[in-house]
Amino acid sequence: MRVWAPDAGLVELESAGSRVKMDRTENGWWTVDAPFIRHGVDYAYYVDGEGPLPDPRSAWQPEGVHGPSRWVEHSRFTWTDAGWQQPPLGSAVIYELHVGTFTPEGTFDSAIGRLDHLVELGITHVELMPVAEFSGLRGWGYDGVDLYAPHHAYGGPDGLKRLVDACHKRGLAVMLDVVYNHLGPCGNYLQRFGPYFTARYQTPWGEAVNLDGPESDEVRRFLIDNALMWLRDYRFDGLRIDAIHAIIDISAIHFLEQLAVEVDDLEVELGRHLVLIAESDLNDPRVIRSREQGGYGIDAQWNEDFHHALHSVLTGERDGYYHDFGTLADLAKVLTEGLTYDGRYSPYRRRRHGRSAADLSGHRFVGCLQNHDQVGNRALGERTSHLLSPGQLKIGATLVMTSPFVPMLFQGEEWGAMPPFLYFTNHQDAELGEAVRRGRQHEFAEFGWNSEEIPDPQAEESCQRSKLDWEEPLKEPHRDLLQWHRSLISLRCRTRCLTSGYLGNTTIDFDEDARWLVMRRGSAVIACNFAESAQSIVCPAFLGRSIVLGSENSIEVEGEEVFLPGHTAAILLD
Amino acid sequence: MRVWAPDAGLVELESAGSRVKMDRTENGWWTVDAPFIRHGVDYAYYVDGEGPLPDPRSAWQPEGVHGPSRWVEHSRFTWTDAGWQQPPLGSAVIYELHVGTFTPEGTFDSAIGRLDHLVELGITHVELMPVAEFSGLRGWGYDGVDLYAPHHAYGGPDGLKRLVDACHKRGLAVMLDVVYNHLGPCGNYLQRFGPYFTARYQTPWGEAVNLDGPESDEVRRFLIDNALMWLRDYRFDGLRIDAIHAIIDISAIHFLEQLAVEVDDLEVELGRHLVLIAESDLNDPRVIRSREQGGYGIDAQWNEDFHHALHSVLTGERDGYYHDFGTLADLAKVLTEGLTYDGRYSPYRRRRHGRSAADLSGHRFVGCLQNHDQVGNRALGERTSHLLSPGQLKIGATLVMTSPFVPMLFQGEEWGAMPPFLYFTNHQDAELGEAVRRGRQHEFAEFGWNSEEIPDPQAEESCQRSKLDWEEPLKEPHRDLLQWHRSLISLRCRTRCLTSGYLGNTTIDFDEDARWLVMRRGSAVIACNFAESAQSIVCPAFLGRSIVLGSENSIEVEGEEVFLPGHTAAILLD
Repeated sequence: MRVWAPDAGLVELESAGSRVKMDRTENGWWTVDAPFIRHGVDYAYYVDGEGPLPDPRSAWQPEGVHGPSRWVEHSRFTWTDAGWQQPPLGSAVIYELHVGTFTPEGTFDSAIGRLDHLVELGITHVELMPVAEFSGLRGWGYDGVDLYAPHHAYGGPDGLKRLVDACHKRGLAVMLDVVYNHLGPCGNYLQRFGPYFTARYQTPWGEAVNLDGPESDEVRRFLIDNALMWLRDYRFDGLRIDAIHAIIDISAIHFLEQLAVEVDDLEVELGRHLVLIAESDLNDPRVIRSREQGGYGIDAQWNEDFHHALHSVLTGERDGYYHDFGTLADLAKVLTEGLTYDGRYSPYRRRRHGRSAADLSGHRFVGCLQNHDQVGNRALGERTSHLLSPGQLKIGATLVMTSPFVPMLFQGEEWGAMPPFLYFTNHQDAELGEAVRRGRQHEFAEFGWNSEEIPDPQAEESCQRSKLDWEEPLKEPHRDLLQWHRSLISLRCRTRCLTSGYLGNTTIDFDEDARWLVMRRGSAVIACNFAESAQSIVCPAFLGRSIVLGSENSIEVEGEEVFLPGHTAAILLD
Repeated sequence: MRVWAPDAGLVELESAGSRVKMDRTENGWWTVDAPFIRHGVDYAYYVDGEGPLPDPRSAWQPEGVHGPSRWVEHSRFTWTDAGWQQPPLGSAVIYELHVGTFTPEGTFDSAIGRLDHLVELGITHVELMPVAEFSGLRGWGYDGVDLYAPHHAYGGPDGLKRLVDACHKRGLAVMLDVVYNHLGPCGNYLQRFGPYFTARYQTPWGEAVNLDGPESDEVRRFLIDNALMWLRDYRFDGLRIDAIHAIIDISAIHFLEQLAVEVDDLEVELGRHLVLIAESDLNDPRVIRSREQGGYGIDAQWNEDFHHALHSVLTGERDGYYHDFGTLADLAKVLTEGLTYDGRYSPYRRRRHGRSAADLSGHRFVGCLQNHDQVGNRALGERTSHLLSPGQLKIGATLVMTSPFVPMLFQGEEWGAMPPFLYFTNHQDAELGEAVRRGRQHEFAEFGWNSEEIPDPQAEESCQRSKLDWEEPLKEPHRDLLQWHRSLISLRCRTRCLTSGYLGNTTIDFDEDARWLVMRRGSAVIACNFAESAQSIVCPAFLGRSIVLGSENSIEVEGEEVFLPGHTAAILLD
């Protein structure tokens, strides 16, 4: 057994009621020979007499964040996915999934029962929202504190392995969302062990993780070993790294670069392709640029500009960060140049933002019409299905699935699910729970909401209401939208110029007033009518092409002219 | 007249006893047509009724940091340096100079009288320690608060221009040390005008400058316009940017990159070569790498590793950051690979530090045996001349002048000046003065110093004692050391393989126990005996070469053997 506690004078291991002193070894690590700690045995640590404290690298917290750690021998699990390889990221269609609300039971095992739906839809990659143990039984997962332990309420380590194995068996790759920019406010015992945090930098969640100060080598190891564990021991195919703009590191080798290098090495070791995707609001191509070009070598990043541009064009919303978007020009720019904000002034941020990424592949970006944040960070957790007409939903899906970016859906989006995705928590600390409730009310007061209109994050109902209803996709109009998604995904996957990430073959014409947009992607042409009323669009690109997918039957092409009813889209091919 | 005050509701301009309201225009700028503000006229601002406040971009503070600003028409000055161009940085020998102590008078004009000494020494570039207006009459300059105003006690704008002009007339380039990581604690009115600072990042001097938050575009402009002003209006040839590791900016275009780009553009506009040199303790080659390679494109950075390695080998000191150095292997590594800490563990920093810069030119680094910090941040401000034997000083000078780095001397080093260079301040605020005094005592208590041993920074004597004594270089042993420096510089400048920055032609043999080191730089060979006693060094590289410079007459070469008395160095050529 070994644990890192560089400033401690005494570290003890406790198990089955007895405590043994550990020996200080190199670099602040404490070790002890403890053959009695075997698979399934509970234990805890005492630092300078304070405890019991869960192991910072606990693999399982069967009683939650304050309870003992349980030892897990990963080799005990029997995998059935021999020879598994994920497909290339450029050919991927990602599905973001929250284990707690994907099924009524909200467990890893119950999720397995719905995987066939994803296969039929054409999904290639499942992306699990964070599963690391957080305080309470309900939550999005971004307040995890035991970063190595799959949440006990979801089914713990074995449950997670069964889910990954079941995905692979069905040809689905699986990625995990990991949070390395902060830890949750409840059950975070890390600071008792060592300088995991620094006051030099502040993040929206308080002190930043110490990635460049004294003793930071081991803090970096803590996070990188965590990443490697998910990929090696749980056989994940990749990681989505949460909010990297709050991972502050000015040392010569940025944490993300080190992570990417070590994941590359693991890829060779395991003989399996692995991917890293960052959530970044920096619009800094350095994150995804190759290391030879001075980048960090992360495979891809979420494309916030694409989401915001598409969302605001479709909904007409201009609040908050949508203030920076709203025109077809913004949408055209992100589709042809990779980013809308490539150094231009952002009124929302009140500064210039980003730099050009136009030389990169579109496959370095993940594009979506919605994700957990864009839905759940709304006051009422409204999905686009609450905000848009069925026709508009189809336009949105069309642009996501024909974009040069790697498309992503948020669970239930494929059928226009009607349950909201609310912000929900289950903090065991009453004071903290109240603070979260008030914070949420305060946040939306700015946008004119009254406190009583904001669903209570701590209420169990907020989680219950957010669960998918699996009867919906069997009914209209959901069935129709689901079929549209299936058709789009199928067409994308079999049409080379649509799966291409090359931005150079993407050109766009649009009319801001008439509200139409025509995108050429190599030999494919995508026509969208954002207006409520029908119109004919004249464009030489239509000539000689026929409609292979139209969101309404009455869409017609004749020569250089396409007739589109209000809120419709069509894809034309040679 | 225009001033930036984005959050103000009312901004007024005051001059000659009357106040006029200004008009709010774009981006938080306030303007007013004020023909009465002419060259030499005093004025101040009022923000929301609070004032009088000096202009953040004041060109002159004739009465100090709290007084009115005086308008300066830069075009009034008559320059006599038409056609001036500085030599390439790779051929430079830099001389760091503190205006207040370089001469007894401590002014720009009095410094002119000593420029011929620098020319005779072989200096190509003078580097002035910061001259921006700081509180009081005495100080190093790093507590500047009126960044656009040359200190009134040094002679103000015209004095500085006369100094630069006089340098150019003698063929000397001039660089200015600028501080963009913080402002001084006294007389800093910037926060009354706008969000110049941010609490998100902490530096050793408090809140960081706001370079990536809301309204940061104009904060960046404030600093970059300052840089451009020194280069354009004062005709400086370059800037040395203080402590860039405290310039925290995670936006997609780092402040330093923007600065370098704009200075490149100014170079074209002015038709004059300009250089940027950073002080960095990041050991991050990104700072000096080309922008094509993902770097910031800064021309060069101070090489702290070279200084520390050389200093600790010569003095045997191991306190503080010297803890990381002390072996000939450390010195050999920095000379052949550009950095000693290129990712390896630093016991002093308690983390791994840096990354390889071995592919870069040595000309991207400035190397020295001492500088204002390394002298002045010692308890007693001891120069190497207080710490080393005359022979050791000559070894140090030899390695500085034959290194692949751009060599730099600190004022008086060339003759082994005996006045210390103490830390001195002249804060007008008594409480602040006391805090600085105590802080200094506290800092050195850690290293075993008693309070009363630490010279009082606030005492006028601390500045007086630090002034150069210009009688010294006329006397032995100073004259001999001065001649050694002249000879070294002259040899470096006329020997192509010594001026070369190519690290690939530098190889080193050394014996850690016998304490000798032999460096080959192309066809030149440099032999150093760090030991106190004489020894013969056998090395095939000596064969066929003869001694062109030896620090003692008894140094001899015969075949593959060089005889070196204790504390001597020699340079051999074909």
